[in-house]
Amino acid sequence: MKISTVKEFTDEKEQRNRPQQNDVDLDKVVLEIIRRVRERGDEAVRDYTEKFDGFRLADLIVSPEEFAEARSLITDEFYAAICKAKHNITAYHEVQKERSWFINQDKGVMLGQKVTPLDSVGIYVPGGKAAYPSTVLMNAIPATIAGVRRIAMVTPAQANGKVNPHVLVAAEEAGVDIVYKIGGAQAIAALAYGTETVQKVVKITGPGNAYVARAKKWVFGDVAIDMIAGPSEICVVADETAKPAFVAADLLSQAEHDERASAICVTTSREFAEALSKEVHAQMEQLDRKGIVETSITDNGRIIVVDSLEEAFQFVNELAPEHLQLMIENPMEQLPFIRNAGAIFLGNYSPEALGDYIAGPNHTLPTNGTAAFSSPLGVYDFMKKSSVIHYSRQALQDVSDDIITIADAEGLTAHANSIKVRKADENA
Amino acid sequence: MKISTVKEFTDEKEQRNRPQQNDVDLDKVVLEIIRRVRERGDEAVRDYTEKFDGFRLADLIVSPEEFAEARSLITDEFYAAICKAKHNITAYHEVQKERSWFINQDKGVMLGQKVTPLDSVGIYVPGGKAAYPSTVLMNAIPATIAGVRRIAMVTPAQANGKVNPHVLVAAEEAGVDIVYKIGGAQAIAALAYGTETVQKVVKITGPGNAYVARAKKWVFGDVAIDMIAGPSEICVVADETAKPAFVAADLLSQAEHDERASAICVTTSREFAEALSKEVHAQMEQLDRKGIVETSITDNGRIIVVDSLEEAFQFVNELAPEHLQLMIENPMEQLPFIRNAGAIFLGNYSPEALGDYIAGPNHTLPTNGTAAFSSPLGVYDFMKKSSVIHYSRQALQDVSDDIITIADAEGLTAHANSIKVRKADENA
Repeated sequence: MKISTVKEFTDEKEQRNRPQQNDVDLDKVVLEIIRRVRERGDEAVRDYTEKFDGFRLADLIVSPEEFAEARSLITDEFYAAICKAKHNITAYHEVQKERSWFINQDKGVMLGQKVTPLDSVGIYVPGGKAAYPSTVLMNAIPATIAGVRRIAMVTPAQANGKVNPHVLVAAEEAGVDIVYKIGGAQAIAALAYGTETVQKVVKITGPGNAYVARAKKWVFGDVAIDMIAGPSEICVVADETAKPAFVAADLLSQAEHDERASAICVTTSREFAEALSKEVHAQMEQLDRKGIVETSITDNGRIIVVDSLEEAFQFVNELAPEHLQLMIENPMEQLPFIRNAGAIFLGNYSPEALGDYIAGPNHTLPTNGTAAFSSPLGVYDFMKKSSVIHYSRQALQDVSDDIITIADAEGLTAHANSIKVRKADENA
Repeated sequence: MKISTVKEFTDEKEQRNRPQQNDVDLDKVVLEIIRRVRERGDEAVRDYTEKFDGFRLADLIVSPEEFAEARSLITDEFYAAICKAKHNITAYHEVQKERSWFINQDKGVMLGQKVTPLDSVGIYVPGGKAAYPSTVLMNAIPATIAGVRRIAMVTPAQANGKVNPHVLVAAEEAGVDIVYKIGGAQAIAALAYGTETVQKVVKITGPGNAYVARAKKWVFGDVAIDMIAGPSEICVVADETAKPAFVAADLLSQAEHDERASAICVTTSREFAEALSKEVHAQMEQLDRKGIVETSITDNGRIIVVDSLEEAFQFVNELAPEHLQLMIENPMEQLPFIRNAGAIFLGNYSPEALGDYIAGPNHTLPTNGTAAFSSPLGVYDFMKKSSVIHYSRQALQDVSDDIITIADAEGLTAHANSIKVRKADENA
């Protein structure tokens, strides 16, 4: 694994960050799919499913019998694990729930912020070869806690025309109301605009392939979306007390996601850097997804040696990684110095996989440096706010002249007039 | 003003909502501007300013002398009004500030949510003929309260090469750190990617013309943006107790913004509807911006007669208006029935203009039906969250098997391995 300095890393990154061309061909395909689904509804969804997934769907909706069958196909061990995960995810996200509030001021002024759940949400869950029950929990549980009235899920069926049973059991446990056996850009279009069978939603969340990501970008504005997820990243800050075997395993767990995933360790110890590099290569040999891992580590894996923790944190705050592990002495003490990271894992026994599945915080995190300005998926993504303003006659009278002064300065005299008609009425 | 039923209104709206072509020519121009600013920095910004604003800028940054001059050019009345607005906006937004939190669980588990201000923000303020000091306050004050370290503002200069003095005084009062005399897509590109003079920011907020809106859409992802504002809207729910003169003035204050602005009144009283229609036309005659108002009212102004308040609220929740005024008996009682609206104004003495300028809640609100899934601009837009996870050795041990079970079900065995290396170490 390549060992470099901050400067070398930054120069290399700068080189890669050249402005990219938009993928016009992909957009053409995706826009055509969206257009046809809007025009022809279910028929278009069925046609695209046949074209891309290889079979024609009789029923788009997963039946109660299919849910029951799924439960019979999974192990008790898996069911118990999902229930524990649900319990922990619920406990954490309950704390995120926001309440409406009001403040009162003199003379009958009341101002407030009303917090309301979204009416409906659609969750995209990738299917086909991969099956991610954890994604179902991480998207549906916050929506349930927010109080969303209707939670729909879309996910492509497997080659046998059925949805992966782990995914279905997770959906049932997490409070999903309806599951459609559809995927791709056609599923995003169906959720955004509705068809005969698929009821329109106001927000779409969840990860997907390039088609799904582009479709989400195009329907954005007509509906809300969560985020366009980029390749996954981990950054581990390690000092000489860290264990190379632990850090190596954590870097590799990130690398197995995707060839474009990036795994970076920043360390104050050159000896640790060298021990880590050896350990990464030794562990890599034994992994099932060795091909992906090797490409990812070679292309995007780096060990960066710095002079001090201060320098390490400066690097981290610039990088704004999706996952940050502090594997240093007294990591809690250093927390105040971290400004930009999606999730922060403290100490030697808080590996990323713990957070991916069971600790409770959401595993949908801002990627690709966007942790500088974005947050993990949370209950707040499934609620929205309305301001509330109530002024009495006297209270309005007291600020009338100020409103008229500002409105006049902005040249908006009809605004001023809406105050003047009320003053005139009071003088009558 | 046209009086219609809910059905007529909905059919008409459906008709307008046909899929729109993207404006390819506008995108070409905007993308070229962004590309050149990224490549040539200040020089490109100066060239575009000369081309679009008509003069070549010597200095891009507003000087302390220019701030002092601006203060001398405004009236004491205006200064007092701005100070009162600042006071009220600050009082309201202070309540929005979120705190970091931690929860403890058994066996040394600590989970948290760390709330951190954004490092830097850029605020776009339209210039030229119009000047909107209220926009400065509504964007900068929440950023200041969030604790953003660096608040930059961009706004085009007037024909005399200076920034509007009302806008400059508002910027100084609201805590803006630096003002650049630039506007258009070139200003957005400069904020997003940086130039020799303009320091890059992580989020851009504020309204602008079509070029600015497209530029924000294109830089989105590299930086955060607030929202792409559409035409402004008001919806007034009125019963027979409402005063036609007040409602008319409020509808017209919305209409003066823009030919595309929409002003709708939903009423349970046909007599009120007819009185209102007359009043709108009478008041319109006396307005400075009569041309804009007339087009807006003719094209998008509607009075809708319904049978009951229940029907009115159903209509409102479907419409999800930016501004909602409840001019009915006991409006506070009806608040629970409103699910979708940007800002809700209660009673006869809470006109929209009050909220635009001085009440305290933000005037940057979700437009065009997006109140179904978006919130007003707030302190939360200038902060972001990081999850925090700390597990002890024992606590991880207790969930190890569950993590491995789920990881295996997802086929992510390197994830499972990151837990296994820790188990192996404990058994040693």
